[in-house]
Amino acid sequence: MRASRFFISTLKEAPSDAEIVSHQLMMRAGMIKRIGSGIYTYMPMGLRVIRKVEAIIREEMNAAAGIELLMPLVQPAELWQETGRWDKMGAELLRVKDRHGRDYAIQPTSEEVITDVVRSEIKSYRQLPLNFYHIQTKFRDERRPRFGLMRGREFTMKDAYSFDRDLAGLQASYQIMFDAYVKIFTRFGLKFRAVAADNGAIGGSGSHEFHVIASTGEDALVYCPSSDYAANMEAAEALPVAAARGAAGQALAKTATPDTVKCETVAALLGLLPLAQTVKTIALTVETESEGKLAKRYFMLLLRGDHELNEVKVGKVAGLAGHRFSTEAEILEVYGTVPGYLGPIGTKVPVTVVADRTVANMHDFVCGANDAGYHYTGANWGRDAAEPAIVADLRNVVEGDASPDGKGVLAIERGIEVGHVFQLGTSYSESMKATFLDENGKPAPLQMGCYGIGVTRILGAAIEQNFDDKGIIWPTAIAPFELVLCPMSYDRSELVKEATDTLYAAMQAAGVDVIVDDRGLRPGAMFADWELIGVPHRIVIGERGLKEGNLEYLGRRDTEASAVPLADIVSFIQGKMQP
Amino acid sequence: MRASRFFISTLKEAPSDAEIVSHQLMMRAGMIKRIGSGIYTYMPMGLRVIRKVEAIIREEMNAAAGIELLMPLVQPAELWQETGRWDKMGAELLRVKDRHGRDYAIQPTSEEVITDVVRSEIKSYRQLPLNFYHIQTKFRDERRPRFGLMRGREFTMKDAYSFDRDLAGLQASYQIMFDAYVKIFTRFGLKFRAVAADNGAIGGSGSHEFHVIASTGEDALVYCPSSDYAANMEAAEALPVAAARGAAGQALAKTATPDTVKCETVAALLGLLPLAQTVKTIALTVETESEGKLAKRYFMLLLRGDHELNEVKVGKVAGLAGHRFSTEAEILEVYGTVPGYLGPIGTKVPVTVVADRTVANMHDFVCGANDAGYHYTGANWGRDAAEPAIVADLRNVVEGDASPDGKGVLAIERGIEVGHVFQLGTSYSESMKATFLDENGKPAPLQMGCYGIGVTRILGAAIEQNFDDKGIIWPTAIAPFELVLCPMSYDRSELVKEATDTLYAAMQAAGVDVIVDDRGLRPGAMFADWELIGVPHRIVIGERGLKEGNLEYLGRRDTEASAVPLADIVSFIQGKMQP
Repeated sequence: MRASRFFISTLKEAPSDAEIVSHQLMMRAGMIKRIGSGIYTYMPMGLRVIRKVEAIIREEMNAAAGIELLMPLVQPAELWQETGRWDKMGAELLRVKDRHGRDYAIQPTSEEVITDVVRSEIKSYRQLPLNFYHIQTKFRDERRPRFGLMRGREFTMKDAYSFDRDLAGLQASYQIMFDAYVKIFTRFGLKFRAVAADNGAIGGSGSHEFHVIASTGEDALVYCPSSDYAANMEAAEALPVAAARGAAGQALAKTATPDTVKCETVAALLGLLPLAQTVKTIALTVETESEGKLAKRYFMLLLRGDHELNEVKVGKVAGLAGHRFSTEAEILEVYGTVPGYLGPIGTKVPVTVVADRTVANMHDFVCGANDAGYHYTGANWGRDAAEPAIVADLRNVVEGDASPDGKGVLAIERGIEVGHVFQLGTSYSESMKATFLDENGKPAPLQMGCYGIGVTRILGAAIEQNFDDKGIIWPTAIAPFELVLCPMSYDRSELVKEATDTLYAAMQAAGVDVIVDDRGLRPGAMFADWELIGVPHRIVIGERGLKEGNLEYLGRRDTEASAVPLADIVSFIQGKMQP
Repeated sequence: MRASRFFISTLKEAPSDAEIVSHQLMMRAGMIKRIGSGIYTYMPMGLRVIRKVEAIIREEMNAAAGIELLMPLVQPAELWQETGRWDKMGAELLRVKDRHGRDYAIQPTSEEVITDVVRSEIKSYRQLPLNFYHIQTKFRDERRPRFGLMRGREFTMKDAYSFDRDLAGLQASYQIMFDAYVKIFTRFGLKFRAVAADNGAIGGSGSHEFHVIASTGEDALVYCPSSDYAANMEAAEALPVAAARGAAGQALAKTATPDTVKCETVAALLGLLPLAQTVKTIALTVETESEGKLAKRYFMLLLRGDHELNEVKVGKVAGLAGHRFSTEAEILEVYGTVPGYLGPIGTKVPVTVVADRTVANMHDFVCGANDAGYHYTGANWGRDAAEPAIVADLRNVVEGDASPDGKGVLAIERGIEVGHVFQLGTSYSESMKATFLDENGKPAPLQMGCYGIGVTRILGAAIEQNFDDKGIIWPTAIAPFELVLCPMSYDRSELVKEATDTLYAAMQAAGVDVIVDDRGLRPGAMFADWELIGVPHRIVIGERGLKEGNLEYLGRRDTEASAVPLADIVSFIQGKMQP
């Protein structure tokens, strides 16, 4: 490509609504242009990156026996009503009526349509397994679109759907996709991590997220550096800090702690007490309806003072689905005291005490006294408080926790979710009656998996991971151009022009995706543009170097340029292209 | 590709709602699947054709200095309001409100967005010319979607937009796109014709349509076989049949023609009179408003009895913009007689007589007598009727008319419109204030052109042009696969399997897009599938032939297979790939 035939538009300053670095840099590098809230035109420079991302995904999906098709963007409401998602999905689903008043969804995802396709196409187990995918524009009407392509409303996704005859088949298809995703993200040249995710009802290892590692990431990723354990924060299992409960060493004592409802302040008041010796209490209410009558059940959750509640884990405790925090009135009525002073000692029916695994193994701990203005110190299970009715994993893991696989301690890093693989099972095939005939001629529901990659989101995530104060640093595999040739005085030096044109042709012949900057800019402006845009390899062609038989190479992460003999330059660059 | 790893789904019968052959064959060949009215999933086999069409378009657009970007599908209403199209476009524009109640259009075309992009990006004449294009999903809420991909609601188009500093620049950009379209449609391997189209206000040769020739086409294309004149029916200029008016030879006579209002019946009644000697009359009314008062003007249009009115041409006659047919009451009031007996003799103010060029040169003609039940014969201009106030081209051309370029006579064929190039001028740039600074530093509106190709429509049009009773006959360039290998007993003959696998690898190495049918079907079913799907080249690999060193080749249009020596097969097929 010649820059004079391309469209390059860089900005010194990012618009004020660009809050994060990837958004700022994409705007400054002329990759995207805002058309409306969360809606962008992908400008020529940005589109090149998208196409490279798509090409890698397509190659690996095809290699993994994925079959590409293209489902429509405007989808009849009837299909979404069959699965109940027309009602379940809230305002994020963009809905539209056609000229005849019929309802349609602008697709945020295509489970319904693919299930509609296969229920008439798949008749026999002999056709299975099958994996269909498409790369398509999607729309999600986010309440607050922001961060450029990271949380836009219109975006591009690859989604794949696998169909199998049984759970073993689903698991095999899932593994194939998992492996394909590892290849895809490896080929992107990004540091990434696959983590186990919570997958609701299906259980097992039926869901993983793929995250691009970035310190600015929204998600906390838990992993064990000495094993391959990895999970997102929702799904990471927290073991008890002490494997067994220690014996009681202190006497129970009731201490005045006026106006001291937080564990941190209780610990401080009691004099340098470690927070890890305190227990905090969270009161929950679950409302149930039976034969038209509303009933309430009350739960007291106990966590160590320095631990954080994990809502997803709480929701999985028996009886706690649909819980909410108790109101102050409920607490007064049930516990006879105000929030901030609750504790397990003396707590009785109708309250169920649910202790986190770590709390269940604590001894000589500090907790509320169920009496406004008082805490207990030296509390112990069995002796002072009844054994908790339920012991469960209720908390987020923290750095240094033992890994659930017993192979070390956990570390935490930040990530940006860019992919998700999920074992759906038969939920869609059952609600939409997508069955096949098995070996015995009996109809059975298809076992489904779904597999997404946020194509446009990859751009934002790649930049969050790879930038410096000059601009973007694209990995070579997804850079808009692999190499830029920067001739000095292209228009004024015949020597430079000739060498540049020869080199340009040689690089093209060698399969290098090269752009030559023939715009006639001054060196400083030219270099600044390409550093901002983030092309990973740069060659400067100047008269002086040419006379010495040299070109000047600079990798985007290099601090100093190096001279490369003209004769070696093609193989030198080809060497740099290797991942 | 191996068929066992692909998805092939053929049908013996087309669904009953498929009215035209391309729709029937695409459904039967498993290319598309209906999801809703005018909304399809492009199945794997159909998507391959779409991708090949897109790739050819993309290559030629890039070669013509087009720069690809991607504009959003969901577009803010504000932009459409700026050009007035939010109101002007009726129910075909699919409109949607987001969760905050803001209005958006699902794009049927992107003039507004591209103009919004360039008005902030193009600052100086130095940046011009520019040509941006994208290949994107579009939606047009057709009242009655039908014919499969030919008139769907959701479809794919390539649209390009050129920006120039002046009209000469626009015309140069237009010619570049015109030439690129000729290359594109030639590469598709389709018989096509570019015809001049009416382009409303701009005039000149500012608009051409590209049609795929097909006897089932909806549009009539006018061309001159002995020159390069070509236009669509709306735009084709009709010369007078007689270059000059002949002298009067007959006396005027008033003849009773009771209940005879049509030229055909008048001619028959008057005894073998050629229809070409009759003149028919069409009464039009134009309503104008001036200072709050409604005024009506009346026009009598005259056409030769066997000619057809061309509404677009009528609309261009001075004073006739916004015309409608006169009501019976108006005719009675203004002409004093009933419809069917009007004529130019004695017609006076307030009626303006507008004669078609051919009528103006007629003599001794037959026309209505402005008296119910009577016609004149032997009528002549000047002697009997006042010279017409206006002489204009009012009619559709017919086969055999003189070509307007004076180089022969016109022929007519049917076509399917698949492309359109159009000089927009400054209408969008003026309404959206998209200006640039010219050499003198003065702001001037950008001169715009727009250039569309109906990507998915190409599939339907290609089939309408190329099919037989067995199925589709794809041109090689856009076939889902170029070549199919049909092994006999792939699973049972080691000889066949080995030869097939070797040949498959050799064809892939030679760059042939080949599929091997390893599904284990019987020959009849296998051949029928590929003939229906329309793969242009087929090789059968059988034991007997192999023992003789031969393979059996059949082109999709061939009636007899030919034996090709194994040693020559790759170069033989490569020869067939040449366009």
